[in-house]
Amino acid sequence: RFGYFGKEALKEVKLLVCTIDGCLTTGHIYVSEDGKEVLSYDVRDAVGIHLLQKRGVEVRLISERDCSLKTLSAMKLGCAVEVSVANKLHIVEKWRKELNLCWKEVAYLGNEESDVECLKKAGMSAVPADSCPAAQKATNYICKCNGGRGAIREFAEHIFLLMEKVNSAGKKP
Amino acid sequence: RFGYFGKEALKEVKLLVCTIDGCLTTGHIYVSEDGKEVLSYDVRDAVGIHLLQKRGVEVRLISERDCSLKTLSAMKLGCAVEVSVANKLHIVEKWRKELNLCWKEVAYLGNEESDVECLKKAGMSAVPADSCPAAQKATNYICKCNGGRGAIREFAEHIFLLMEKVNSAGKKP
Amino acid sequence: RFGYFGKEALKEVKLLVCTIDGCLTTGHIYVSEDGKEVLSYDVRDAVGIHLLQKRGVEVRLISERDCSLKTLSAMKLGCAVEVSVANKLHIVEKWRKELNLCWKEVAYLGNEESDVECLKKAGMSAVPADSCPAAQKATNYICKCNGGRGAIREFAEHIFLLMEKVNSAGKKP
Amino acid sequence: RFGYFGKEALKEVKLLVCTIDGCLTTGHIYVSEDGKEVLSYDVRDAVGIHLLQKRGVEVRLISERDCSLKTLSAMKLGCAVEVSVANKLHIVEKWRKELNLCWKEVAYLGNEESDVECLKKAGMSAVPADSCPAAQKATNYICKCNGGRGAIREFAEHIFLLMEKVNSAGKKP
Repeated sequence: RFGYFGKEALKEVKLLVCTIDGCLTTGHIYVSEDGKEVLSYDVRDAVGIHLLQKRGVEVRLISERDCSLKTLSAMKLGCAVEVSVANKLHIVEKWRKELNLCWKEVAYLGNEESDVECLKKAGMSAVPADSCPAAQKATNYICKCNGGRGAIREFAEHIFLLMEKVNSAGKKP
Repeated sequence: RFGYFGKEALKEVKLLVCTIDGCLTTGHIYVSEDGKEVLSYDVRDAVGIHLLQKRGVEVRLISERDCSLKTLSAMKLGCAVEVSVANKLHIVEKWRKELNLCWKEVAYLGNEESDVECLKKAGMSAVPADSCPAAQKATNYICKCNGGRGAIREFAEHIFLLMEKVNSAGKKP
Repeated sequence: RFGYFGKEALKEVKLLVCTIDGCLTTGHIYVSEDGKEVLSYDVRDAVGIHLLQKRGVEVRLISERDCSLKTLSAMKLGCAVEVSVANKLHIVEKWRKELNLCWKEVAYLGNEESDVECLKKAGMSAVPADSCPAAQKATNYICKCNGGRGAIREFAEHIFLLMEKVNSAGKKP
Repeated sequence: RFGYFGKEALKEVKLLVCTIDGCLTTGHIYVSEDGKEVLSYDVRDAVGIHLLQKRGVEVRLISERDCSLKTLSAMKLGCAVEVSVANKLHIVEKWRKELNLCWKEVAYLGNEESDVECLKKAGMSAVPADSCPAAQKATNYICKCNGGRGAIREFAEHIFLLMEKVNSAGKKP
């Protein structure tokens, strides 16, 4: 707790990566007779993303599925997006290096088995309340909110609390 | 409790201002592949608004977001609407003066950080059960119902109870 | 309990009248940017209506609102419908006389203040779990299911139980 | 428990038959003013189906209703489908023989009275948490998840656990 604590030191979060189906959205897909999909997200989460961006945290979206980019851009979130991703860890590694960050500066919100590796690597991670058991085991922050129903906002507030601690610690002599 | 109580005296509510996303609607936005939005409200709340209007309470809607006016007018609520609002307090002040009301005669239903100032200023205020913590701290009436799922109706019934008290108090000698 | 029990005698239900918004549907209205409405009902309730019809109970739908007849006919429920109804009791009286029934043979499912009179008059009545307090006071059967989420089915099963009692009582010497 | 246990022996599941309305979907039908239907399923369940297929379990869908095949194919589940089915048991019998399976190798997920016979015949069966009482009585596995909200995924995980037992039992000398 004192003396050497380099590896455990808190780092400011610079990038939040968020899974689309089941984290940004509810994971419920509404399908019409013409075969078109409708997804659902929550204004609370959009506000959470904007609050993160205002404080200098980059937010990026990731999905295994071939999510419609037109649907995502209609959400006006201002986030880079990568869909049809076979290996999420590869993409997050690419983003991390591109932004010149260490893993301690990466936060990750995921809900599926395909998120387990990233949840374990990230400096901070969380899963929505309705995520799969494997994802819940890979994190130590299980949101009270479900995916697409406030989980991003809740995780954002949690990150802000941490960042305040980091900043106030930095001001100490 | 007796003697001087001017500032604390009950006033009849003449205007109810209600946030759109998360109060009138659930705050859930459904997005289709053609980039169009779908919002959801509850007939119970529409009935609540009509009951308020019948009793002479003006109901107005407000949003930070650029909500579709065509969507709102399809709800046939008969309410004035202001969207893309940067500062909600400014708009409510404008409305209050326009209708020649004091703040005691204004009721406010909000759910977000952007509603905090109005929640504090209004003579009566409420938040839906699923509103953000900052909004919940700024009011003393937290509805049992969620936004878009009966919160307006519940607040309306609460206002009617108060107005009955005001009226019966007014009839005393 | 024995001797004279004419007025209290059980009668077989011949007609079930059901409110549309909040009983057949959830009462949630989804509105798109082109101003079109989407309603939601549950296959369980559609099955409940078909089971009632099979056993000879006529099912009719009623609404104060100007519900879209095209939407309702797409549900393929095979029910007569009356919308934009100012006074529900008048319509149900008309139907009752047209079918030559006494009130004891009429069942009613409603959720709003506009249903209170019919709920009180009907031989059997019920309200969904999420109905308004005034409607709950006017009935003695509050469903466990919400409107549009199984309330009709639940009430149908309740009616079948009663009808079995009536029939088995009728077979006694 | 030991000695003769032929009839009770565990068999590997080769086919899962799943009811569409209320199991794959929520059973909620969204209807627009142009009379078109929208159904809702969960990405978790789609992942569950793909996990089953990967392990060699065939998944097939069945419905009494005339579900839109275009809607179902938009879900990209890769499952054979039979709709407008008057007698589900006949179809499942046909499929079972076609695939040369015994009933012990068939798993069934259903939620309605029309599923009761299949639930009783199948080697493994389950119902969603919000299924009808008759279906719940016909199975011994009631999912914690509702239909269209994780019930298939939950049943799939349950099947995987059983298959591991079968496989590890097969490896014993």
